[in-house]
Amino acid sequence: MDGRSAATRVDGDDDELLPLRRLEISDHAKGFLDLLSQLSPSSTPLSDGDFRARFADLDALGDDHLIVVSEDRVSGRIVATGCVFVERKFLRGAGKVGHIEDVVVDASARGRHLGQRVVRYLTDYAKAAGCYKVILDCSIELRSFYEKCGFKEKDIQMALYF
Amino acid sequence: MDGRSAATRVDGDDDELLPLRRLEISDHAKGFLDLLSQLSPSSTPLSDGDFRARFADLDALGDDHLIVVSEDRVSGRIVATGCVFVERKFLRGAGKVGHIEDVVVDASARGRHLGQRVVRYLTDYAKAAGCYKVILDCSIELRSFYEKCGFKEKDIQMALYF
Repeated sequence: MDGRSAATRVDGDDDELLPLRRLEISDHAKGFLDLLSQLSPSSTPLSDGDFRARFADLDALGDDHLIVVSEDRVSGRIVATGCVFVERKFLRGAGKVGHIEDVVVDASARGRHLGQRVVRYLTDYAKAAGCYKVILDCSIELRSFYEKCGFKEKDIQMALYF
Repeated sequence: MDGRSAATRVDGDDDELLPLRRLEISDHAKGFLDLLSQLSPSSTPLSDGDFRARFADLDALGDDHLIVVSEDRVSGRIVATGCVFVERKFLRGAGKVGHIEDVVVDASARGRHLGQRVVRYLTDYAKAAGCYKVILDCSIELRSFYEKCGFKEKDIQMALYF
């Protein structure tokens, strides 16, 4: 025994087996959009040109936009992702707010705390960027997951679809 | 009688008395931040330099960020505001989502449908920008107001304060 719990060992191994890093253009070929389609079935495939165009749009936002992914070192596939964008406000002394969006873990990789690692990565990023808070919208079913990540329920989300 | 209801007449008059337009740098001197402080009491005053710097940050986002204000033509004060930023996603065929934030009407100007006009302006803007939906977070107390604006409750908001 090395004194670490089984859970710690798994997380530690996954830091190496499922490392987190920024999205790269080559992730289009590694199933990044297939992964997103698990979040929204109405996701449509993008051509490589459209993918590159959107990548460039977001890259132009610099530090105000981050997409993190986890690439499975064995399969070479993207198995988790999430993003945060930093909103600059006039409120709170020209404060900043981190908005977390589009967090998803591949069905094959669940139960390994990968979602929590993604959310922690995004939250740490927002904090380091000077945000005074980070917020996100989720279904009631995901409340306990985000509570484990340190979040508290605060408001309701209203939506209008065109 | 000209066939218009009293409510319509009031709205029509307010289109002229309380017109909506984009935020301008000179609105700092017209009470824009005093108005925001009604939304968040912890708002701190900004120096003119800090105001200009944040204005430039947001202006650099071009069509992806809009702050609308209403200037009372009689008092010359800003009495309503709201903003929308357009998030560009990979989801939904590289779709766009409008996020409405920081909607507030001055206490002296309430009851004149100004809030609804602000929200409609932002919603129309998001739609014209190609968003497939517009979303916002609000307290339970504001649900019926946003329902009048065409929104439906969808999810919960989770927050983590640093």
